[in-house]
Amino acid sequence: MADKNKKKKVALIGCGLIGQSWAVSFLSAGFSVSLFDPTEGATETAKEKIKSKLKDLQNLGLIPNNSISDYLEKTHLAQSLSEATQDSIYIQESGPENLEIKKKLTHEIDKATPTNIPIASSTSGIPTSFYANDVLGKHRCLVAHPINPPHLIPAVEVVPAPFTKGAVTQRVKEIIRSINKVPIELTKEIPGFVVNRLQGALLAEAFELKKEGIASAKDIDTAISHGLGLRWSFMGPFQTIHLNAPEGISGYVERYEQMYQEMFNNPSLDWSSVLENGLKEEILNLFDETKRENFEKQRDDKLAKLILHKRSSSR
Amino acid sequence: MADKNKKKKVALIGCGLIGQSWAVSFLSAGFSVSLFDPTEGATETAKEKIKSKLKDLQNLGLIPNNSISDYLEKTHLAQSLSEATQDSIYIQESGPENLEIKKKLTHEIDKATPTNIPIASSTSGIPTSFYANDVLGKHRCLVAHPINPPHLIPAVEVVPAPFTKGAVTQRVKEIIRSINKVPIELTKEIPGFVVNRLQGALLAEAFELKKEGIASAKDIDTAISHGLGLRWSFMGPFQTIHLNAPEGISGYVERYEQMYQEMFNNPSLDWSSVLENGLKEEILNLFDETKRENFEKQRDDKLAKLILHKRSSSR
Repeated sequence: MADKNKKKKVALIGCGLIGQSWAVSFLSAGFSVSLFDPTEGATETAKEKIKSKLKDLQNLGLIPNNSISDYLEKTHLAQSLSEATQDSIYIQESGPENLEIKKKLTHEIDKATPTNIPIASSTSGIPTSFYANDVLGKHRCLVAHPINPPHLIPAVEVVPAPFTKGAVTQRVKEIIRSINKVPIELTKEIPGFVVNRLQGALLAEAFELKKEGIASAKDIDTAISHGLGLRWSFMGPFQTIHLNAPEGISGYVERYEQMYQEMFNNPSLDWSSVLENGLKEEILNLFDETKRENFEKQRDDKLAKLILHKRSSSR
Repeated sequence: MADKNKKKKVALIGCGLIGQSWAVSFLSAGFSVSLFDPTEGATETAKEKIKSKLKDLQNLGLIPNNSISDYLEKTHLAQSLSEATQDSIYIQESGPENLEIKKKLTHEIDKATPTNIPIASSTSGIPTSFYANDVLGKHRCLVAHPINPPHLIPAVEVVPAPFTKGAVTQRVKEIIRSINKVPIELTKEIPGFVVNRLQGALLAEAFELKKEGIASAKDIDTAISHGLGLRWSFMGPFQTIHLNAPEGISGYVERYEQMYQEMFNNPSLDWSSVLENGLKEEILNLFDETKRENFEKQRDDKLAKLILHKRSSSR
């Protein structure tokens, strides 16, 4: 992977924590990076932080053991936007989470960047339609949202606007895969995207349980960290319930839909229709029913190995 | 741990998947188990399944490498309820998830069991008040709900009814800890308890995203399995957000409460009050603010090691 990216450069606009993490991810995959930040001295500070993060990841054995100076030689501190974007194959903007600032910044990046180069924003929840609608090159604008801490978590949400060209979205997914990250593609914009909506739903229930005095915060956290979170570290909620009933996801919904309706006092909760409108078909395509026993065994093996891993790393 | 439990016996009533998993957990911690199931031949089948599960766990290195025949010698197949409960220090009922059956079964177990021995049910969502209110010995009845697959997941929900004696709840938590599991104590009964409410909240949002056509089921799953689920395998949602803002959980709520209100179109979402009514205090007691940097570093180290573990075990 690294060799292929050897001569490629990306521009990172905004050099706070998120921008620094992007730098670490691109550098460790063999890219050069150009950093730009309008704040005086920000790129110099960022370079120091990047150096220290790279060392940490090397110590942990997560990234290639190249000499740190090789990485730093590929870290350019630009004096202007156009210096950063020049010869870059990709622009990642990690500016402040503020609609007006993002509008202005995207305009400026668009003007400074050769046509057809993708311009992605790290925003954790503002759809591209909101901030790039009046941008001339809006067809190459979209969101590429990493998850905290972004130098470690593989998933990245890729969220095109209706005006984003399909080829741009595909190109951005390729670039994200080439830095050993895992793109999630949203087919429609929605505030909060997928990750923060899923996190928010879990949080809302956790706050509700705490508010009602059902359990301590510590015990609510334990329900995840010694319970549900173990499976979720290698399979998502749909795969989990598909393996939680002998008849698969259909059986799960048949058995438990009413329980969840009553639990949440929400008679309009209707998972059966979602199932019939494509979900069941997609799940059965992903998990061949004739191999159900294999999938269950894989889950149990992965769980057991994870538990052993947790035991040994907490010693 | 195992030595201390050497001469202790527990009764397991109902020998389906859940009962079998309890047997494996108790046996591997040194207990003897008495199995009873009203269905003809069920305990014999269960014994075979227990044998095979014990072998699996030994192969994975998760439980002591005692000879399987030692474990099986401690597995008694009882012909009646009272034979199973006799000399047992704890009764775990894993009968069908049906209110009327559970009422009847709990009555029978109560009659057959010496006073003061705890009677716990594996029910995943029926509060003890619903099924044990008319039981003579209801003060020693409560829920001990394991999570699928129960021979692997450590968390167990302990849910007393208002009429359950505090000493019984404490005793059950001790027993659960002594088999290397982690009890979560609910201070109030609620349908679905904590685990299924948290799981249900995440599922409801996942189904909603799929219904609205925001992303494929595969990508929604990936948002968890390569994203949020990594942290959740060793820290819960409260600890996660406490470390996600430089000012801790208060800063997180201040920054993002409005975002979540808008995202879920729910202006009455009110996390600030929960924070002020005890949550903030509890979190700050759990995580000493002067050690924030340590906690962040621990999180990043654990994440990095988890990612390495996932890479090596998926090879």
